[in-house]
Amino acid sequence: MTHTKKALGIDIGGTKICYGIVDGNGNILSEIKKTSTPKTAQEIFNTLKNIIEENYKDIDVIGLSSAGAVNLENTRVVSSTPNLPSGYNDIDFSTLSDKKVYVENDANCAVVAEAVMGAGKGYHTVLMATIGTGIGGGVFSDGQLFRGSKGNALEVGSMKIFADKRQKCTCGRYDCWESYASGTGLKNCAITGAQNYEEFKTSIYKDKKPQDITTYDITDGVEKNDAFCIRVFEQWLYYMFVGLVSLTDIFNPDCIVISGGMCKFIDVQKMEDNINKESVVTNVKVKIAQTENLAGMIGASILALKQLN
Amino acid sequence: MTHTKKALGIDIGGTKICYGIVDGNGNILSEIKKTSTPKTAQEIFNTLKNIIEENYKDIDVIGLSSAGAVNLENTRVVSSTPNLPSGYNDIDFSTLSDKKVYVENDANCAVVAEAVMGAGKGYHTVLMATIGTGIGGGVFSDGQLFRGSKGNALEVGSMKIFADKRQKCTCGRYDCWESYASGTGLKNCAITGAQNYEEFKTSIYKDKKPQDITTYDITDGVEKNDAFCIRVFEQWLYYMFVGLVSLTDIFNPDCIVISGGMCKFIDVQKMEDNINKESVVTNVKVKIAQTENLAGMIGASILALKQLN
Repeated sequence: MTHTKKALGIDIGGTKICYGIVDGNGNILSEIKKTSTPKTAQEIFNTLKNIIEENYKDIDVIGLSSAGAVNLENTRVVSSTPNLPSGYNDIDFSTLSDKKVYVENDANCAVVAEAVMGAGKGYHTVLMATIGTGIGGGVFSDGQLFRGSKGNALEVGSMKIFADKRQKCTCGRYDCWESYASGTGLKNCAITGAQNYEEFKTSIYKDKKPQDITTYDITDGVEKNDAFCIRVFEQWLYYMFVGLVSLTDIFNPDCIVISGGMCKFIDVQKMEDNINKESVVTNVKVKIAQTENLAGMIGASILALKQLN
Repeated sequence: MTHTKKALGIDIGGTKICYGIVDGNGNILSEIKKTSTPKTAQEIFNTLKNIIEENYKDIDVIGLSSAGAVNLENTRVVSSTPNLPSGYNDIDFSTLSDKKVYVENDANCAVVAEAVMGAGKGYHTVLMATIGTGIGGGVFSDGQLFRGSKGNALEVGSMKIFADKRQKCTCGRYDCWESYASGTGLKNCAITGAQNYEEFKTSIYKDKKPQDITTYDITDGVEKNDAFCIRVFEQWLYYMFVGLVSLTDIFNPDCIVISGGMCKFIDVQKMEDNINKESVVTNVKVKIAQTENLAGMIGASILALKQLN
């Protein structure tokens, strides 16, 4: 009888730490438990240590999913993490247990979860784009996560979609894809549209200050058939399309998985058709992510278990 | 005594077939030989077969470098190859010998050669950008070539650097990076510049039709301190910079290797400084390729030898 190796997957979020036991196929084998994220780095360390001890006898390895860039050794978080306490970057996660502890960035964990057991299951090269306030990404190809030289690859939100310093991004740079095609991008499209589109004069939002128009206002206005909102929304979709076509030509994925708060507004079949018409490297499927809140726990577990082979 | 495995590396070009025996570190162990590329696919097949027979007893594996996209099994060229005869795509290269034959796209072979024994030697993640009439690319990271789902990844020349259908590319699409930052791109910058820059009126080329200004005219004009040419050239360099910054954020390379006919015009130290100021994932080195005409032969050999392990 073969022993199936098991990981303890732990997702460290800004408000909750969520954990469970997961096998190499991404199946969750235990109840999923949650606890509030403590306020200091030392308390986070202690909480993780207790969670590991509680499950120690049932697991072979520990996988952690965290916000922030992770070092190439997968032992530390090295970039700033606004929702986690100062001192968090000083934690050497490998000292949490005598069993192997493997930490990975949450966006990378998510693409692994989607590629192994979510929307990208069965595809060779899965590109994930997470469309929220900003845009994040990940690529899992031929069974491997693409990490780059320092583990910081797939900062796709910073890809430039204009080359004439047209629009400043919240990061201080110009023309980042996420300043056009994220949730923030949709607001920016509304602001620019209010200045340039005739339709604004007859819009349901004509009396609102353009900078006060929310993403909700626009998507709601589209439902209500407001011509201004439709034009803004179509522009936003076009910006998303431009970035996804470039990434398709760059990575030659056979599946693009879209996740994040804005993904429910995207007609993936139409996006897929448009990408396949434009890209030089057809054919790609476009799908919505399936693993949602469990993506971090599952992806971290799969990656940790890979280390044992 | 360990036996060092050897490959026969063959570079199939539109005019010449070039070959030699190469080890896994990219060292060339034999004289490099050349022969004219025959005019039919059948003759190319026969020529390759003869070259392999001639070297059969000295080699363990055969690596071929070819223009065109290669299938995921590395046995056939599947895209159009304008400089090679019709029927070329019908060749199953694996039938050339009872020893393993491995074919790879020339751009991919080049990045492997540069990463293993050229300008990118010793770096973790090497991004190569070949700036010629168009722009090609490749990524070699953590000892692996990134190929994508069908082997067509790194079509970086098709990455869009504008999102408003500003300039048509020779491929028929709009705003491809290569229509702004390749040799063709430099000509396009001159045409646009002639329409928009005051400096054209006093340029040494003021009496030339803008579409007749060549890349040589511009680089020569820069040498002669012509204000128009300098402005056109600086714009071209900026477009190149925009694409390279996006690719840096996407791949997190620690080394970018630039090759191709236009690379001699680029101040790589200045480009490196500018990329490191702008990218969200510092620090990258920018270097000029070193393996030049031997890149295909060397890279194909290294890849073929990797198959034996």
